[in-house]
Amino acid sequence: MTTKKEAADAAVAAKVRLGLSWADIAEAIDAPLAWTTAALLGQHPMSKERAGKAAEVLELPTDVEAALQLQPTRGALDSPVPTDPTIYRFYEVLQVYGPTIKELIHEQFGDGIMSAINFRMDVRRVPDPAGDRVVVTLDGKFLPYQW
Amino acid sequence: MTTKKEAADAAVAAKVRLGLSWADIAEAIDAPLAWTTAALLGQHPMSKERAGKAAEVLELPTDVEAALQLQPTRGALDSPVPTDPTIYRFYEVLQVYGPTIKELIHEQFGDGIMSAINFRMDVRRVPDPAGDRVVVTLDGKFLPYQW
Amino acid sequence: MTTKKEAADAAVAAKVRLGLSWADIAEAIDAPLAWTTAALLGQHPMSKERAGKAAEVLELPTDVEAALQLQPTRGALDSPVPTDPTIYRFYEVLQVYGPTIKELIHEQFGDGIMSAINFRMDVRRVPDPAGDRVVVTLDGKFLPYQW
Amino acid sequence: MTTKKEAADAAVAAKVRLGLSWADIAEAIDAPLAWTTAALLGQHPMSKERAGKAAEVLELPTDVEAALQLQPTRGALDSPVPTDPTIYRFYEVLQVYGPTIKELIHEQFGDGIMSAINFRMDVRRVPDPAGDRVVVTLDGKFLPYQW
Amino acid sequence: MTTKKEAADAAVAAKVRLGLSWADIAEAIDAPLAWTTAALLGQHPMSKERAGKAAEVLELPTDVEAALQLQPTRGALDSPVPTDPTIYRFYEVLQVYGPTIKELIHEQFGDGIMSAINFRMDVRRVPDPAGDRVVVTLDGKFLPYQW
Amino acid sequence: MTTKKEAADAAVAAKVRLGLSWADIAEAIDAPLAWTTAALLGQHPMSKERAGKAAEVLELPTDVEAALQLQPTRGALDSPVPTDPTIYRFYEVLQVYGPTIKELIHEQFGDGIMSAINFRMDVRRVPDPAGDRVVVTLDGKFLPYQW
Amino acid sequence: MTTKKEAADAAVAAKVRLGLSWADIAEAIDAPLAWTTAALLGQHPMSKERAGKAAEVLELPTDVEAALQLQPTRGALDSPVPTDPTIYRFYEVLQVYGPTIKELIHEQFGDGIMSAINFRMDVRRVPDPAGDRVVVTLDGKFLPYQW
Amino acid sequence: MTTKKEAADAAVAAKVRLGLSWADIAEAIDAPLAWTTAALLGQHPMSKERAGKAAEVLELPTDVEAALQLQPTRGALDSPVPTDPTIYRFYEVLQVYGPTIKELIHEQFGDGIMSAINFRMDVRRVPDPAGDRVVVTLDGKFLPYQW
Amino acid sequence: MTTKKEAADAAVAAKVRLGLSWADIAEAIDAPLAWTTAALLGQHPMSKERAGKAAEVLELPTDVEAALQLQPTRGALDSPVPTDPTIYRFYEVLQVYGPTIKELIHEQFGDGIMSAINFRMDVRRVPDPAGDRVVVTLDGKFLPYQW
Amino acid sequence: MTTKKEAADAAVAAKVRLGLSWADIAEAIDAPLAWTTAALLGQHPMSKERAGKAAEVLELPTDVEAALQLQPTRGALDSPVPTDPTIYRFYEVLQVYGPTIKELIHEQFGDGIMSAINFRMDVRRVPDPAGDRVVVTLDGKFLPYQW
Repeated sequence: MTTKKEAADAAVAAKVRLGLSWADIAEAIDAPLAWTTAALLGQHPMSKERAGKAAEVLELPTDVEAALQLQPTRGALDSPVPTDPTIYRFYEVLQVYGPTIKELIHEQFGDGIMSAINFRMDVRRVPDPAGDRVVVTLDGKFLPYQW
Repeated sequence: MTTKKEAADAAVAAKVRLGLSWADIAEAIDAPLAWTTAALLGQHPMSKERAGKAAEVLELPTDVEAALQLQPTRGALDSPVPTDPTIYRFYEVLQVYGPTIKELIHEQFGDGIMSAINFRMDVRRVPDPAGDRVVVTLDGKFLPYQW
Repeated sequence: MTTKKEAADAAVAAKVRLGLSWADIAEAIDAPLAWTTAALLGQHPMSKERAGKAAEVLELPTDVEAALQLQPTRGALDSPVPTDPTIYRFYEVLQVYGPTIKELIHEQFGDGIMSAINFRMDVRRVPDPAGDRVVVTLDGKFLPYQW
Repeated sequence: MTTKKEAADAAVAAKVRLGLSWADIAEAIDAPLAWTTAALLGQHPMSKERAGKAAEVLELPTDVEAALQLQPTRGALDSPVPTDPTIYRFYEVLQVYGPTIKELIHEQFGDGIMSAINFRMDVRRVPDPAGDRVVVTLDGKFLPYQW
Repeated sequence: MTTKKEAADAAVAAKVRLGLSWADIAEAIDAPLAWTTAALLGQHPMSKERAGKAAEVLELPTDVEAALQLQPTRGALDSPVPTDPTIYRFYEVLQVYGPTIKELIHEQFGDGIMSAINFRMDVRRVPDPAGDRVVVTLDGKFLPYQW
Repeated sequence: MTTKKEAADAAVAAKVRLGLSWADIAEAIDAPLAWTTAALLGQHPMSKERAGKAAEVLELPTDVEAALQLQPTRGALDSPVPTDPTIYRFYEVLQVYGPTIKELIHEQFGDGIMSAINFRMDVRRVPDPAGDRVVVTLDGKFLPYQW
Repeated sequence: MTTKKEAADAAVAAKVRLGLSWADIAEAIDAPLAWTTAALLGQHPMSKERAGKAAEVLELPTDVEAALQLQPTRGALDSPVPTDPTIYRFYEVLQVYGPTIKELIHEQFGDGIMSAINFRMDVRRVPDPAGDRVVVTLDGKFLPYQW
Repeated sequence: MTTKKEAADAAVAAKVRLGLSWADIAEAIDAPLAWTTAALLGQHPMSKERAGKAAEVLELPTDVEAALQLQPTRGALDSPVPTDPTIYRFYEVLQVYGPTIKELIHEQFGDGIMSAINFRMDVRRVPDPAGDRVVVTLDGKFLPYQW
Repeated sequence: MTTKKEAADAAVAAKVRLGLSWADIAEAIDAPLAWTTAALLGQHPMSKERAGKAAEVLELPTDVEAALQLQPTRGALDSPVPTDPTIYRFYEVLQVYGPTIKELIHEQFGDGIMSAINFRMDVRRVPDPAGDRVVVTLDGKFLPYQW
Repeated sequence: MTTKKEAADAAVAAKVRLGLSWADIAEAIDAPLAWTTAALLGQHPMSKERAGKAAEVLELPTDVEAALQLQPTRGALDSPVPTDPTIYRFYEVLQVYGPTIKELIHEQFGDGIMSAINFRMDVRRVPDPAGDRVVVTLDGKFLPYQW
């Protein structure tokens, strides 16, 4: 059986070979950009329909198409502290601002968390004369501690 | 010498005792909300002027006021993987979506990172009939790999 | 300022000194047994009213009563893998049955998780001729992955 | 020799291919649902008879059937702290409520543990107007410390 | 409140000061030698009666006597892999012979474990012309995996 | 060259296939039971003669017979803290009773260790009306610290 | 798809086989020495043109040439603390002088960091009668903390 | 006895209180800037004379002056991977360029290392129209592997 | 009760204050140099007589003299991998030459170990025109694996 | 390209097959015994000449001969704390005597280290009526801290 990891490798290889962008693929399967990327990287199961469309646009074989529909065991980092600088900066944000985020959530909502399940995110390029900016929006439902 | 950690503890205790919100303090020292919170939690040095205003509104002694101006050694998590659920969910976002964020930054900007230094963030409550949402915006300058 | 940890130590010491059970205290503050225990061990903030009742029944001073109302930074284990045998057995359950639980949640609900926030639990003694049994019920709202 | 891990992979692949549920398989081999799932995931040895039935319903070759009967070396997590969110929530329960469970076991039974060996568990879907609930019951014999 | 750790330190200090052996104390409180040692080192709770006798023979104050009766959170090693050579050799036995012990338990008993709860041990000196031997006997009830 | 690990896998596979017990093999090669098991699991080198007999009774090919005679690099656990419950209980014994064993060795012998090199062990089933017991005897020469 | 790691292995093997130096290759592809080395070791993506020249001088096949252009997931150490002595000395510099570097950056620039992205470095041999010296220059843009 | 750590804390506190720079102190004790900083941070022993001068300019008491002369046990990071961003960037340089540095040392010198003992470093601000640069020079004697 | 650690700190402080060398102290207590140093650093128990002489020459109070006689829990490194460069070099020797030492012990003695218990060591300065040398001799009894 | 690791495996296999000792090989390639062993285990690069002689005496193919000449990335332990008892004893020596060695080096030489680069070692068997001894001599150039 083709694993989610092998399917992700196959999808990325096809994307590079065909010169497609994640945005192209997201449009082809009619799904949000970040969700599409995460799903093809093996972190979400795809519906039969979307897997079919993705297989079509990426010219993937049937076993990969099947693997895209499997339930993943999530977790994409090679080590508890990521080493890639592009990913590490977000870990650094947690190290420096984690308790700040916690304080502000509690101040605005009371005791609880931002859901990472009922959750969406996006990554945008915002033009700025002093240098364009990466704006990442994390948007999750507030879940109050509730016995 | 009072340390940044002791100053942070004193600031939080005073905030609770006086019934102030982080928003109240941010307004009093005329600084962004998340920055103010992070600075009082010991992750940023304050200017002499802001430390003075913060000491005034929080009724802090002079040694704490001095400590607020010290250069911090940053890093606010007790362990590499945070245990508090409110903070952990952001680590989980990194575990599930870290490579997705990396892919999208590279697609939109090329090789490089989102700066965590030339950076601002905010935490907002967004009303939603299906349950209000925590929206965290991470906004950093793009830095291209450049030799 | 008295910390949550110091307040928890004070509460446990008072409980032992006064010969009270957790059930006694739960009844006195009119809250579920496991919630009450967790709150007094420093893992939940108490309302002003419940903290007052708890302080009364446990004869705790005002600073401890105040600390019981503080927002905790959660996480109660001394090390990632717990060493105490009574607690370790639950970690062992995760090691042996974690993927089983995951499979059954996905089979019965689809892709998602059991919330540990909208969550209640209890520990009961169930008589059994072959030796009484510890029955721990973990009961959390299902949260579907939802973009 | 086919390993338990390879047999588990083969069983899961066959289950997906044949469109069977864990419940279907449990019924076919006449064993409890959670036990069946754990055994096919490689955490329990199967009797010759049950392995035979499982091989039949899952159309598994003889070497896999043999592997299902082997004594496992247990432990199913890839890292001490699990990264998959569905499994992590149970680790979080341990982090937040571990000492609470310990206190309540000692209050109701005295010094001892819940056995994870003389043990059964189940996962159920409980309808709830505010959202259906995952109810996991851990049920183990109490074992008193006894010299 | 005096902790188990402080009580253990006090007991060891008194033992050294009074020139008592663990065997003397075990006899005085009428309990097995290894159990007595473990209990005074803080790994078992003592009954009121035994704590009283131990306090008498070791001339311990009342708060220590009370602490000896508390329920411990067990775990006596400073690090996952012990560094003290006398203790390390037993970890080495596990590293070299752990799977051997597992195989032999399964061969003689079937699938299950040696209980570390319904358990007793002793350490004896066995004369040997080629050098006396340390003989440690670990003796625990067999617990079969039983659903 | 066949490694010790591959030889161990081959030996275990042959043992299962031929329906032999470790006791059968130990008798066939005329060596103590636990030593034989450990050696075939790759933790001891075998003499040419014993490797020959083992290869005969287990019908192993020449390269495996050669590998059984190689000097091992010892260490049989996959992680510093073992996850398999049957093995973990012995780690738990160390966590709970390690310092107790150390105290008793020092009391009976003075400063020194139990050798894990000049060492033998056995695992026995001892009938007991309250449930048969696993009795593991660790028997090593005392080695005094000696400059 | 050939991975960056496989491409790096192929490049190093070709370099050894052809007797080329990193300096030769850097000259051939007209890029800085350290950058060229890092890129061929898989830590930077190469432009189509440079990958072409590198493939030519190193006689690499097309799939390797393609892999050299891929975006890397950076991080070149096998373990958090490197074991190779030549690399370890730089980790030791961090252990001994890390806070010194931090103090001096803050003294000369204020609060901020040396960029590791807008960054160049070189390694030079500086003749010295008392033994030639390795001089490594790390040269990165200063980035002030800026909200 | 005052420890190196306490002496370092005292020195930093005095430096802040007196408004001195590391450069001022280095000049006062007539030693290189980075060496002076490292020594006062507790990573080098000072000669009696320099400790005397440092104590004078920083108005430190005699016990601190004595501690500055003690031999340190070196190692200045709180965790194997540093969390402070200013220090982390140098760890990141190691992660991305460590093997590059190794290759270039071997190419220019043969098998060996840059000494971190016979070693000097400095941190300079280099003006640049595109933003001033932090230039850190690591300068150590080459030590060839030599039996 | 004064601990071994506190006694070691007191001994080192006295040694510095009195201007004594380890060699002076070793001579005064008539014991080998390295043993004396290790014992005073808390890694060996001293006889009553030697502790008395050490207390005399170092002018230590009675509680420290008593602590020097206590049985230590050995292990002197702050972290599994030491950070101090003088100590690290010996860890590096293990990393580079560990398997070499193992091979040579097995070649010269057969299967077994060098005892670290029946063991002595010394550190000597050996003059050399190319720079004096540190010569550390580790000298332990060979212990053959012997069942 | 054959790696150093594969070359080491091939060399060890050939040594066993041909019944050669490390001493035989060292003599054949005219190099010190411990150096030869380390080099063949992949921790040192060999000169073209020595690799040629080693390939001859061990009957190794050309690719292995080439690999023996490659520059290694050093580090021979599978885990930070070695598990093999023969190697572990040397780690234990570090744990018990590391600070002792440091103290004695500083006493005899001042501040500095024993080089592990300008370094030689040997392992000898020293006859002793009470049991022959393993004597390991570590002999490295003293390197003073020198700015």
